[in-house]
Amino acid sequence: MSTEESSPEEAARPSLSRRGLFGLAAGVGAAGLALGAGAGSAVGVAVGRERAEQEGAASVHPFFGTHQAGITTPMQDHLHFASFDMMEGTSRDDLRSLLTDWSYAAARITQGLQVSATGAVGGSPEAPPDDTGEALGLPAFGLTITIGFGPTLFETEDGKDRYGIASQRPRGLAKLPAFLGDDLAPDASNGDLCIQACADDPQVAVHAVRNLSRIAFGRARLRWSQLGFGKTSKTTAAQTTPRNLFGFKDGTANILADDTAALADHVWVGGTDDPAWLAGGSYLVARKVAMLIETWDRVRLSEQQRIIGRDKSEGAPLSGGKETTAPDFRTKDAAGSPAIDHASHVRLAHPDLNGGIRILRRGYNYVDGNTGLGRLDAGLFFLSYQRSPDQFVTLQRALSTDLMNEYVRHIASGIWVIPPGAKSGSFVGAGLFG
Amino acid sequence: MSTEESSPEEAARPSLSRRGLFGLAAGVGAAGLALGAGAGSAVGVAVGRERAEQEGAASVHPFFGTHQAGITTPMQDHLHFASFDMMEGTSRDDLRSLLTDWSYAAARITQGLQVSATGAVGGSPEAPPDDTGEALGLPAFGLTITIGFGPTLFETEDGKDRYGIASQRPRGLAKLPAFLGDDLAPDASNGDLCIQACADDPQVAVHAVRNLSRIAFGRARLRWSQLGFGKTSKTTAAQTTPRNLFGFKDGTANILADDTAALADHVWVGGTDDPAWLAGGSYLVARKVAMLIETWDRVRLSEQQRIIGRDKSEGAPLSGGKETTAPDFRTKDAAGSPAIDHASHVRLAHPDLNGGIRILRRGYNYVDGNTGLGRLDAGLFFLSYQRSPDQFVTLQRALSTDLMNEYVRHIASGIWVIPPGAKSGSFVGAGLFG
Repeated sequence: MSTEESSPEEAARPSLSRRGLFGLAAGVGAAGLALGAGAGSAVGVAVGRERAEQEGAASVHPFFGTHQAGITTPMQDHLHFASFDMMEGTSRDDLRSLLTDWSYAAARITQGLQVSATGAVGGSPEAPPDDTGEALGLPAFGLTITIGFGPTLFETEDGKDRYGIASQRPRGLAKLPAFLGDDLAPDASNGDLCIQACADDPQVAVHAVRNLSRIAFGRARLRWSQLGFGKTSKTTAAQTTPRNLFGFKDGTANILADDTAALADHVWVGGTDDPAWLAGGSYLVARKVAMLIETWDRVRLSEQQRIIGRDKSEGAPLSGGKETTAPDFRTKDAAGSPAIDHASHVRLAHPDLNGGIRILRRGYNYVDGNTGLGRLDAGLFFLSYQRSPDQFVTLQRALSTDLMNEYVRHIASGIWVIPPGAKSGSFVGAGLFG
Repeated sequence: MSTEESSPEEAARPSLSRRGLFGLAAGVGAAGLALGAGAGSAVGVAVGRERAEQEGAASVHPFFGTHQAGITTPMQDHLHFASFDMMEGTSRDDLRSLLTDWSYAAARITQGLQVSATGAVGGSPEAPPDDTGEALGLPAFGLTITIGFGPTLFETEDGKDRYGIASQRPRGLAKLPAFLGDDLAPDASNGDLCIQACADDPQVAVHAVRNLSRIAFGRARLRWSQLGFGKTSKTTAAQTTPRNLFGFKDGTANILADDTAALADHVWVGGTDDPAWLAGGSYLVARKVAMLIETWDRVRLSEQQRIIGRDKSEGAPLSGGKETTAPDFRTKDAAGSPAIDHASHVRLAHPDLNGGIRILRRGYNYVDGNTGLGRLDAGLFFLSYQRSPDQFVTLQRALSTDLMNEYVRHIASGIWVIPPGAKSGSFVGAGLFG
């Protein structure tokens, strides 16, 4: 992140933190948001030698575009996910100003710049800097910021349309149904808004959530947040399939960024099912899935493989071949039983058994320290993008007999719509405000 | 981490997890531990393209040596720190066998190999693999594992010398005194044993703690653990000075790996003060320091800089110059006041005001989600190495009037001695067992 500012059109931009809580909404104009890929030119000025050489350090993804970044973007190594609730008494204008401010800051920090143009560290000593500073000297590290709206944002409360957008609620946007075995913590579930920050450096992802949380002050409050690492899927063919905390490759058959047809079929909201403002957007489902790893680690290899339906070393389906070979559920083993168990994870989740349904997965491993019993508090922070929540619901129901269920617990859950990308000079969700 | 095994002398090595709880101690011979830097030759076989290109991916540090790795080793990007308690009813032999098993596994995984030679993933399907598998295909990523012994390990309990080592207790090894403002959580403090796992990839660090914790089963139990990222110090001149979560550069004046004289003076235990078995070792202090970052972020820049004693952009002392310029506490500002405040952090911690005392710092930033008040639960996991705990105690007492104290809370604490490095074919702490 650079301490130097290069965009003259931003010189008149008011500093974020000195405006007070609601000041920015009035002061913002299109010019202030006119950041494109070109703004990345000042990136990397003070980058340390060894950090700059890291793969991913130099990646810069545009914030503006048809779709929001962070969905088909090559999966970064680190996640900081945050859910927010709008504060009591806030208005439609507050929501609009928050989205405007978030988009302004996100458009900058994803390009490796400080949060604001005029309140930089190194600027006025008599005010708190707009940027908290811990990412100074770091490049963008592929940072993407993806903003979502939860069902509660569109609710009416005591007969009052909270933010005047109830009529524009996407029809699929509702709290997920209960699933067998759910043990959800309400405090770590749902939320009016969400931010998914992904980067190839955790400090950059944390810096994003911290600063967006700070910008929200007085308008929205952090409800819960989750750090993740060691991605459990891939979104491009060039990426190696990573491993989850069960030690198995995960994401082998994910929808990839260059599969335009599959993205259109399964990920991007089209023009007919949902309100026009959501076209080009998506639905995001988050599930925090605790893994009983100590129990799993005592299961013999053959049983682990039976549960998953793939071999552990290579990730090949148990019906034979290599990792990328399609599983064949008709193949029998030497004893005449199905080579891939009927209740294995790979079979139950397979499109062939679910009417062709697919989702784009983007989950991360997490370790939140340990429990009082001396076990690691660890698992999968599952994230999936789909054009309708029905896709996730169908798959999750199909998994009700999954052999893996003995080793996992769903402990938190949330759903949000992901608006399409913002046009340059506009903000995420602008379509909602007409 | 490779699935291939290359060391024929290990073929007879019993598999760890299938031996039952205490089986390994009997079966272990010097040959089983004869791993040196050469064992790294099998590293990287299945490394993904994009991961292998990352800086740090190819780093492999020897486990055996004069000193344990992970102290002067160039600071890696990620930390998983774990504290363990020996289980009730365990014996001196259990402690010895645990240290033997830990050293065996650590010597392997730091070279990018699986936890054991004969119980690899891809081996017998009828047993749980010795290795949990999530680091398969990843290189060593500079992994170091540093093992320490807490004061309680040397205690007598009900008149009984717990592990027959009370007479060999280093005289400096005692619970740290209380400091002004301490608000320590006992459950997240201290412990009989500690493991510091550092790597340039979090999955590799987590894999290490998970597997060492698994190996300890029946002998020691995880007491608490902490993940960290975004190092807050540097240990070589080639590393860029990183920033802490206050947004300031941290570790500018740290003791560096090539400063042999300073290491001898301040870090390595010599031959006279402590028992002979500890020569070449060190003392490790860990402090979990919560930072009130939302409060800090509202402090004006000039005040933030006054508190630290350095400027935020460059890290230069307020007496002038650049980051590497020595602070001059006599310099006055325009108003005739000291340019560096008397109660600033940089002054109170400076060797010139503390009888020349220095410590080697190796701390990491942490974010443990957020509090119920919507604030990030974040701060510094401080780690320092010194030849005597007196060094830390003196400095921490000097900081009792630190202006920074208003923005930090010490919430956990621990101290351990770090034995010298193990000789090839031996184990960490062997000197204790005569």
